[in-house]
Amino acid sequence: MDERLTVGLDIGGTKIDAGMIDATGNIFNKIRLSTGAHEGLDTVLQKIFHAIDTVIKGIYQPIAGIGIGVPGQVDVNTGVVLFAPNLKWKYVELKKIIQEKYPLQVEIDNDANCGALAEAKLGAAQGVKSMVWISVGTGIGGGIIINNHLLRGAGFAGGEIGHITLQQDGPVCGCGNHGCMEALASGTAIIRQVKEGIMAKKRTGIVDMVDGDMSKITVSTIAKAADQGDRLASEVLNKAGQYLGIGIASIVNILNPEMVVLTGGVMEVASTYLMKPIQDTARLRVLVSIRDSLQIKLSQLHGNAGLIGTRLLILS
Amino acid sequence: MDERLTVGLDIGGTKIDAGMIDATGNIFNKIRLSTGAHEGLDTVLQKIFHAIDTVIKGIYQPIAGIGIGVPGQVDVNTGVVLFAPNLKWKYVELKKIIQEKYPLQVEIDNDANCGALAEAKLGAAQGVKSMVWISVGTGIGGGIIINNHLLRGAGFAGGEIGHITLQQDGPVCGCGNHGCMEALASGTAIIRQVKEGIMAKKRTGIVDMVDGDMSKITVSTIAKAADQGDRLASEVLNKAGQYLGIGIASIVNILNPEMVVLTGGVMEVASTYLMKPIQDTARLRVLVSIRDSLQIKLSQLHGNAGLIGTRLLILS
Repeated sequence: MDERLTVGLDIGGTKIDAGMIDATGNIFNKIRLSTGAHEGLDTVLQKIFHAIDTVIKGIYQPIAGIGIGVPGQVDVNTGVVLFAPNLKWKYVELKKIIQEKYPLQVEIDNDANCGALAEAKLGAAQGVKSMVWISVGTGIGGGIIINNHLLRGAGFAGGEIGHITLQQDGPVCGCGNHGCMEALASGTAIIRQVKEGIMAKKRTGIVDMVDGDMSKITVSTIAKAADQGDRLASEVLNKAGQYLGIGIASIVNILNPEMVVLTGGVMEVASTYLMKPIQDTARLRVLVSIRDSLQIKLSQLHGNAGLIGTRLLILS
Repeated sequence: MDERLTVGLDIGGTKIDAGMIDATGNIFNKIRLSTGAHEGLDTVLQKIFHAIDTVIKGIYQPIAGIGIGVPGQVDVNTGVVLFAPNLKWKYVELKKIIQEKYPLQVEIDNDANCGALAEAKLGAAQGVKSMVWISVGTGIGGGIIINNHLLRGAGFAGGEIGHITLQQDGPVCGCGNHGCMEALASGTAIIRQVKEGIMAKKRTGIVDMVDGDMSKITVSTIAKAADQGDRLASEVLNKAGQYLGIGIASIVNILNPEMVVLTGGVMEVASTYLMKPIQDTARLRVLVSIRDSLQIKLSQLHGNAGLIGTRLLILS
């Protein structure tokens, strides 16, 4: 095992996480910055440089390289970010830009691919050869590993698990399609459905919990309401779990992986209410030949999988 | 290239196709037998032996082996058919049984996997590294090739593309689930929808075309009715095409293959009516980043892909 450290960056639409990562997946010198994507490419690049400079400050051990996860399509051979809608990036030669400033190996991949790699190597899917990693947060992303290799797709656009259609005429998704899993079961969708319930005058304590300010409703608020027996909260979470279960059954029927690992902000705060309908619905809908062997687990790396996984781009 | 011949068998629920296959994928001495699956395993095995004996009769060239496609889950390492519902087989040691009688290399795989292999090597997907092969017939089956390798799944149950859910509360599928693509867009589903239209007194010439005998309605009848401007026939085919397009968009968002190839009895007789709604719907629903590069094509090997592909189990 290569014991050298790596610099890791997990670039999101709103925040950049960065840190030094050691061989066991421990993160130190971790920092978080706002991405500032709306201020344009140069601003984000300055933030990236600042993040790298900050985390390597005072490190005198050998550094093997810089791994970066990006929310979009990345040509992993050239290190070009082909398309990252949340960053408003198109064809950004990120590897080249970083290497001009730092004389180190630089590798870039999709953030969910990084997460899946980390989970398979150091998390819930250790020893598993094929798995589907699903991150349920503001949106729904995914990384797929088949026979120990990432399924990146012909145009590096594979694994977009959030964009399978569950309802032909369902709510409009951010991608433009109708009824995507993301439009029905992401954090955004869960909050929207609760707000719709409130507008439809369903009885709920959620409005009081946010002092009447509907813009303050989060999935965490909704989970807390469910803890207190709030029926609207429980119903919406249960339905989201069912949608996730339907989507997982479809994915599993296509890929027949050994394991499905669930992670992301929504799972972190609401897995108590989501896991049962997910498990029950997926098991009910999956092919009989797959049912008994299907494993659906929660992440063991929580919010750090993407950042830890950047190390595996450099040293696998 | 190995010029030796191979014996190929494509075992279906109702018929067995067998023949000698040469290096260019030509089939000769081809025969077709009824499978007789309802008479039990021994009957089917006798038919398989008879088929092999018949096709190798009079062949004095070297034979490299026997390749067999089976409609079910096959452990390709051991040659055991784990589960083939249409044959009512569970754990049949087919490779061992065949090799006891014939001193040749014997390889067995799922029939759709054979079809996908053939299409990638000799058909519409030549030169393509990742593709999804979808057979629309009585049911809907699929074979997936990623980076030139079949995606067989952890339990050899991958590629069951017909069993992605398109309608949560849709019609019951043969697999027990509701609203599978197979339950909405297979030949069986198309015929059922036409019959439902007839029962609902929709105007159609189809009843006259089968002399009032509804059991005689086939997808071919329906396509002929559409040729004559029959509105019910056109509507049902158009809707089936849309369902296929929705399913393909989901699969493509997950796998990002270079190409999707469509084949099977339904495509053979009704592609005129299906391809446009398939293409239009898939393109509309797929992620923007994939849209322009997505290729959806018809098979070039037609009904023979599965049989030709058995050769590639022996000599690839």
